[in-house]
Amino acid sequence: MTIKKHYQCLAQRLEEIARLNGIMNTLGWDQEVMMPIGASEARAKQIATLAGVIHERATDPALGDCLSALKDGISELGEIERCNIREAQRSYELETRVPKRLVQELAELSSRGHGIWVAARQENKFADFAPVIKRFLKLKIEWAQCVSPDLLPYDANIDLFERGTTMATITPIFERLKDELIPLIHIIQHHTHQPDTSFLQGHFALNKQEALAQKISRDMGFNFEQGRIDVSVHPFCGGSHPTDVRITTRYKTSNFVESLYSVIHETGHALYEQGRPHEMGDLPVSESLTMGLHESQSLFWERMIAQGKPFCLYYFEIIRAFFPDSFKSVNADLFYRAINVCKPDFIRVEADEITYPLHIILRYEIEKGLFENSLQVNDLPHIWNELIRKYLGIQPPSDRLGVLQDSHWSGGAFGYFPSYTLGAMYACQFYKTLLSEQPDTEKNIAEGNFLPIKTWLNEKIHRQGKLYTTEELVRRVTGEMLAPSYFIDYLKKKYGEIYGVKFT
Amino acid sequence: MTIKKHYQCLAQRLEEIARLNGIMNTLGWDQEVMMPIGASEARAKQIATLAGVIHERATDPALGDCLSALKDGISELGEIERCNIREAQRSYELETRVPKRLVQELAELSSRGHGIWVAARQENKFADFAPVIKRFLKLKIEWAQCVSPDLLPYDANIDLFERGTTMATITPIFERLKDELIPLIHIIQHHTHQPDTSFLQGHFALNKQEALAQKISRDMGFNFEQGRIDVSVHPFCGGSHPTDVRITTRYKTSNFVESLYSVIHETGHALYEQGRPHEMGDLPVSESLTMGLHESQSLFWERMIAQGKPFCLYYFEIIRAFFPDSFKSVNADLFYRAINVCKPDFIRVEADEITYPLHIILRYEIEKGLFENSLQVNDLPHIWNELIRKYLGIQPPSDRLGVLQDSHWSGGAFGYFPSYTLGAMYACQFYKTLLSEQPDTEKNIAEGNFLPIKTWLNEKIHRQGKLYTTEELVRRVTGEMLAPSYFIDYLKKKYGEIYGVKFT
Repeated sequence: MTIKKHYQCLAQRLEEIARLNGIMNTLGWDQEVMMPIGASEARAKQIATLAGVIHERATDPALGDCLSALKDGISELGEIERCNIREAQRSYELETRVPKRLVQELAELSSRGHGIWVAARQENKFADFAPVIKRFLKLKIEWAQCVSPDLLPYDANIDLFERGTTMATITPIFERLKDELIPLIHIIQHHTHQPDTSFLQGHFALNKQEALAQKISRDMGFNFEQGRIDVSVHPFCGGSHPTDVRITTRYKTSNFVESLYSVIHETGHALYEQGRPHEMGDLPVSESLTMGLHESQSLFWERMIAQGKPFCLYYFEIIRAFFPDSFKSVNADLFYRAINVCKPDFIRVEADEITYPLHIILRYEIEKGLFENSLQVNDLPHIWNELIRKYLGIQPPSDRLGVLQDSHWSGGAFGYFPSYTLGAMYACQFYKTLLSEQPDTEKNIAEGNFLPIKTWLNEKIHRQGKLYTTEELVRRVTGEMLAPSYFIDYLKKKYGEIYGVKFT
Repeated sequence: MTIKKHYQCLAQRLEEIARLNGIMNTLGWDQEVMMPIGASEARAKQIATLAGVIHERATDPALGDCLSALKDGISELGEIERCNIREAQRSYELETRVPKRLVQELAELSSRGHGIWVAARQENKFADFAPVIKRFLKLKIEWAQCVSPDLLPYDANIDLFERGTTMATITPIFERLKDELIPLIHIIQHHTHQPDTSFLQGHFALNKQEALAQKISRDMGFNFEQGRIDVSVHPFCGGSHPTDVRITTRYKTSNFVESLYSVIHETGHALYEQGRPHEMGDLPVSESLTMGLHESQSLFWERMIAQGKPFCLYYFEIIRAFFPDSFKSVNADLFYRAINVCKPDFIRVEADEITYPLHIILRYEIEKGLFENSLQVNDLPHIWNELIRKYLGIQPPSDRLGVLQDSHWSGGAFGYFPSYTLGAMYACQFYKTLLSEQPDTEKNIAEGNFLPIKTWLNEKIHRQGKLYTTEELVRRVTGEMLAPSYFIDYLKKKYGEIYGVKFT
């Protein structure tokens, strides 16, 4: 066969796998949003069967043969084809380098671990959950040695979510953030003047919240002909294809900001998904890059745009028209300050943009210590509480509000957390670039004109798919490597103004 | 391997196929109910990929080996196991006896045929659609010779929907129906007194229609923890498993009877699905029997119960409470007469219970004639119009309201139509048996107490799965074979009373 034939054969196999994964995503969405409660067991069996089919396809020796046959001819092919081969090679290694016993043990532990975590959190008993973490560490280190023998075990785990980024990059950045943000939080925390947030509480009819969220999502550019918004317990962005992107949120009548900003956040993810270059085929090259890049897109819209002043200027009157009773004596500036209040909290998912990175750094340091064996699992509650006191000046009253709060470890997702803060920093650096390339950006936002922004993100990021590494993409977009100083300067400027403090 | 091992191997393969089919059904439901319009192309590719996987599994030679190995040991196994083997053998033959070329040609024609039919109907041009029917006939005759060489080609096609029933059974029954019903329709049609139906038109708020439909469906016994009701263009009963049964309807504000009775009809199907004995595994034995039996369950609830007097007596006041303005000067008896009006119409799906069988018989006679080559495709519009005039005394103004109205032939579903009327007759005979076994039935209905009825259907029919042939099941339930006289007597008695005529 010619190289071209081998490549066609590879592409066909990859598209088949992508389509089966698309179906899996539809099942996942359905389970969270539509499925009747009594169908859980049947659905679990359907998902297991489909997962088996996908695994069979992904580890098919014929796929390996395709890849081997392509090794020598790769120079004959273009950039897109080379990307697909590179990614397929990596996926094939991830799937085939791990012995079946280890795959099964990890799958079994993930499934069991979640239940144990739920119960341990409910009963506030870390000791019940500790064995799960210990076992995962052992398995995840073994797994790392199989899939990426050249990397340190924790780096191999990070690599799964943030390909190409290692501790060598992350640690100095996170050290810098600590040095800068901890004093800043301390000052804000003890500042006499705090923004008034009382008017954000009240009664906000669900159908109005829904209409407002849909309006803003549409304004941002979410294509409802290739997507939908529904309700689920935890907000997420799912769907089976760039032409079928489904985001969810949850509404409570007492607070509309949470659900609105969660829709904005998920719309950020959704625009990335809808913007993927799927005309290149359902192939790796058209996929999103890393978790951190994905998070950069959601945070770009949530933090950089929707928590900014121009956005509040434009939308405040619209929001007031939706909820006239709540905002009688409020103006856009007060609204802007209220939604940007900085207040250390025990819970990561409720944190503001200054304290959030400290939640992440704490988890990163703990994971790093566990993998390097400088920390012991049994000491985690103590270490957790000590770090959170050091970083945020608060003391969790229970492990439920401390070390037991996140589900990630219960499913073995070690190395995931850094992506959140890398994403926040990418978002900030991208925004800075956008401002310099499109000086009218803030004016556009203040007029509700998001098309130039969406188009810029589409071109610069979404439509690049998986062509480049994250490092290379950031360099192509912003002209330099990831630099935490943009993020730090942005926070100092913004919060200095809000709190009337001059941060240096 | 022992027989038991071979059987376990078979069961595992069959459950895998059943689960993949369950996933396919979820995709189908999603497509009709939830999927954004722009996702059609991606979804078509996902479905094609999954269909390929299912076909691969269903024709796997290893499955054939399993079945061969079980042939000699079948006597060692119980009734349930024997049923699974029998059904698996039949499915395997259906899947493997047809050459790939023919499978592909049929699939291609089905997909193309639908589009051609839609356009031909829209433009009222039968000549555009005729080549599709001609080609299908050729292919379906060839197909019949492959899968059931012992049957006449049309019987082999009927067998696909109504296993075990042939023209030899159907033709005399349909002749009897014609002899009895045509004069009856003629008398009713020319009767001076016609029920008042004017109050069924009006304005009926959608949310009230939805609440009413949900209430009645719940009253009938639909389990909302293992099912849901949504909206789609065409009502259907779908879902992925007996614990995940999803029915749909459509609402229009001008008429609530249509959507309400369509929910009742689909709930009848849904109760069959929810009542399947799935604790026997996701295996053939737990599946529903035939199309006709399924239709008997929907028509049992729609026609025998919900169009009956006791049902109207109980629900009329509830319906009036939902829509007080429309029913000021109406009572339960007038409502009963209005929903049972008999009026010949061009369109099958809008027909009442007396004229409906004639629509079916007409189609049956045409299909039979085509397969026996005693009718020519080009003559169909003429033949159609002649028969409908003969049977119902009306003349369609266009082929759109005549020979082009149904989608069935565009997808190659020849032999499907008889199931509708077989179902209506089964329903009537079952109801007759229920009345004799539970003499309180009409009293129960008039009190809104459906549990004894549902329980009876569950035990007698739903939980029998695929253990028996339809003939055998009908005999077990009613003590005799299908006898059209019950259906004829029922119609004469009911409509004689409504129209004040004594039919003999």
